Amino acid sequence: MSLLEKIRNRNAIIGIIGLGYVGIPLALSSSKAGFRVVGFDILPQRIEGLNARKSPIKYIRDADIAKMVDAGFEATGDFSRSKECDALIICVPTPLNKSREPDLSFVTSTTELIAPHFREEQLLSLESTTWPGTTEELLLPYIAKAGLTVGEDFYLVYSPEREDPGNTHFTPQTIPKIVGGKSPRCLEAGKALYGSFIDTIVPVSSTQTAEMVKLVENIYRSVNIGLVNELKIVAEAMGLDIFEVIDAAKTKPFGYTAYYPGPGVGGHCIPIDPFYLTWKAREFGLHTRFIELAGEINASMPQYVATKVVQALNTKGKSMNGAKILALGIAYKRNVDDVRESPSVTVLKLLYEWGAVVSYSDPYVSAFPKMRDHAFNLESIDLCPETIASYDAVILLTDHNDFDYKMIEANSDILIDTRGKYRNNANIIRA
Amino acid sequence: MSLLEKIRNRNAIIGIIGLGYVGIPLALSSSKAGFRVVGFDILPQRIEGLNARKSPIKYIRDADIAKMVDAGFEATGDFSRSKECDALIICVPTPLNKSREPDLSFVTSTTELIAPHFREEQLLSLESTTWPGTTEELLLPYIAKAGLTVGEDFYLVYSPEREDPGNTHFTPQTIPKIVGGKSPRCLEAGKALYGSFIDTIVPVSSTQTAEMVKLVENIYRSVNIGLVNELKIVAEAMGLDIFEVIDAAKTKPFGYTAYYPGPGVGGHCIPIDPFYLTWKAREFGLHTRFIELAGEINASMPQYVATKVVQALNTKGKSMNGAKILALGIAYKRNVDDVRESPSVTVLKLLYEWGAVVSYSDPYVSAFPKMRDHAFNLESIDLCPETIASYDAVILLTDHNDFDYKMIEANSDILIDTRGKYRNNANIIRA
Repeated sequence: MSLLEKIRNRNAIIGIIGLGYVGIPLALSSSKAGFRVVGFDILPQRIEGLNARKSPIKYIRDADIAKMVDAGFEATGDFSRSKECDALIICVPTPLNKSREPDLSFVTSTTELIAPHFREEQLLSLESTTWPGTTEELLLPYIAKAGLTVGEDFYLVYSPEREDPGNTHFTPQTIPKIVGGKSPRCLEAGKALYGSFIDTIVPVSSTQTAEMVKLVENIYRSVNIGLVNELKIVAEAMGLDIFEVIDAAKTKPFGYTAYYPGPGVGGHCIPIDPFYLTWKAREFGLHTRFIELAGEINASMPQYVATKVVQALNTKGKSMNGAKILALGIAYKRNVDDVRESPSVTVLKLLYEWGAVVSYSDPYVSAFPKMRDHAFNLESIDLCPETIASYDAVILLTDHNDFDYKMIEANSDILIDTRGKYRNNANIIRA
Repeated sequence: MSLLEKIRNRNAIIGIIGLGYVGIPLALSSSKAGFRVVGFDILPQRIEGLNARKSPIKYIRDADIAKMVDAGFEATGDFSRSKECDALIICVPTPLNKSREPDLSFVTSTTELIAPHFREEQLLSLESTTWPGTTEELLLPYIAKAGLTVGEDFYLVYSPEREDPGNTHFTPQTIPKIVGGKSPRCLEAGKALYGSFIDTIVPVSSTQTAEMVKLVENIYRSVNIGLVNELKIVAEAMGLDIFEVIDAAKTKPFGYTAYYPGPGVGGHCIPIDPFYLTWKAREFGLHTRFIELAGEINASMPQYVATKVVQALNTKGKSMNGAKILALGIAYKRNVDDVRESPSVTVLKLLYEWGAVVSYSDPYVSAFPKMRDHAFNLESIDLCPETIASYDAVILLTDHNDFDYKMIEANSDILIDTRGKYRNNANIIRA
């Protein structure tokens, strides 16, 4: 039976490689559409948890995982089982190394594990964000080496993930999906697969175009956040509240979209993805100046915030050295539990280096996770008037809905607001 | 009778100073709302034309001007008549000088003309785009000098124009209007006035905030156009069509807004307004790096386009020197007749300097207008197959709806497209 037929009658088995923020929602969607799904990961804990019907992600319910397992889903660390699968979808992280260069080691090591098992009538799709050309330059050679011919007996596509953790307005099914194929028949296979469980498929002319689309989306976001962060500094110097300015500007019914400043950018996309283009552009002798400027300004925001805290303490005759500081929110954005690349952590680290005694409270993160560059041995503290009053300064870093903002305002000695939650209170320091 | 009462019962007389792209729509709206309107200008031709019921703007009909005149509108060059007016609204241009510094001479010369006639219970509103602080630093002193007290017997507001020529989705009445007052009573007067003929008034806390709002709107636009122009160059080097990339990216239902590249930026706002903030920020020791980068990249686009034309001719063994070049569209954007700051003109100038014999066709601009830096003695040519075929190269610079794109494509020897109108035709050069 051809791949297209198998997809059409839901006999295709879908292999999802990398069971994280992208892979799990994808597994849920394809399982729900009637496909049998095999999930691959290298973390034994992740595999065991899923098979035991536990969700590793806070906003995905155990019940949904259980339902998927009942429908035949299985997680495994045995990559030879990729041979069973008709479609293989790679959803592994693509970080940057310490020199801010693309680190595609997860993609290549994954491909090394599955390539020996490539067979006829298989579809391989890469979803990880990466530089234009990756799919053809990195993955295609493995297919040729396996004695298969792309577009004839094997299909290769790139289809970027568009997950937005915490966004309740859209589901994986309702977010249009970009698909670029190595050949017209590859594209056809990709459209058939994703079209089985996603409402709208957006075909583009090549895998490179699809790769570029994803980068442009996140570059746009990074640059616009960088811009408002720079404008915040200018507005602040002029005595203006940038949040008031933005809220007024966004009443313009065309030609303006509101982005808000903050203590920096975080998460696995915005601080990282744009530099994939920067790196590839160098091959063509080109600079991506907007990306670099946005990166520079966004990366400088934690320092800006830390300096505001120092100044605030100073007005009360206190030094940072020895000061008791409470950080509110260490997740990289509101209402999520993800602290990857969180600017809150960088702020805490800076204050700690200045000698502050730091604490944090985050309803989504009960214990400070072990991170590559930071090792705080802290647990989230519960907020009550006495606790808040016991700190020299309180910094709002992540504006979770769960915080009791009035209680915080009423009991903080010094309150620093990086999210524009407080207005018209001259005692609160904007940062 | 107090100003507020006069506004409420439509007995207030509204004086509009500067009868151009902003002033005329404003006069029409306020007249339609039942106010008597006096228009002030320094150009005798403009005054005579309006009093003779002629519209000076292509997209405003003579019939609308006639109706306004019938309702009592009168244009005049006698600024002493500002004394008759209860509200004075300044809508004069705020350009940049040759050193790219704010040129507020129209605002100050206008104010010099009306200030001797300031009287009690008058409202003065500035609508011209300018740096935060202008209203208080520049206008307020005239009021004090006239022996009046702002907020007590005289009212001062800043309310930025949000005109978007060619936009048919919104009218002056349906675009929300930002108003910032020097004092609460000033704001109240401003809200009453504009609320009489505009659906939604957005009050902000100060005139400076209102000034900043307008700049942020246009800075956002300038930066996003600069960003896509830079991305266009990178995409082009990688063999990708940036227009295809953007059209695919904009299928993302959140977190992305499409802006399109082009031959540069034009019009009276985007190339100019952002530098008003740049200039003011220097007073605070701050740089506005996004604005400067956007300005630099946008300003370099005509050179990029010109180089593409040179390269295209070169592939056919032709030099620019002596080449016959046809530019399609000299207006700064589609479907308008405005050539102010148009990048098309800069492209033409560059090609002319390289020795090209240049012509243009623009259904909106029948004769090349006299401009500060450019003096082409040209008239728009009519397009037909033979005419187009007679040129060595045709450059699409402004994508007016009226062009016959298929006919142009079929008859051009070399066709250069700066607007993404043509896709999937390898013979057409993207620039």
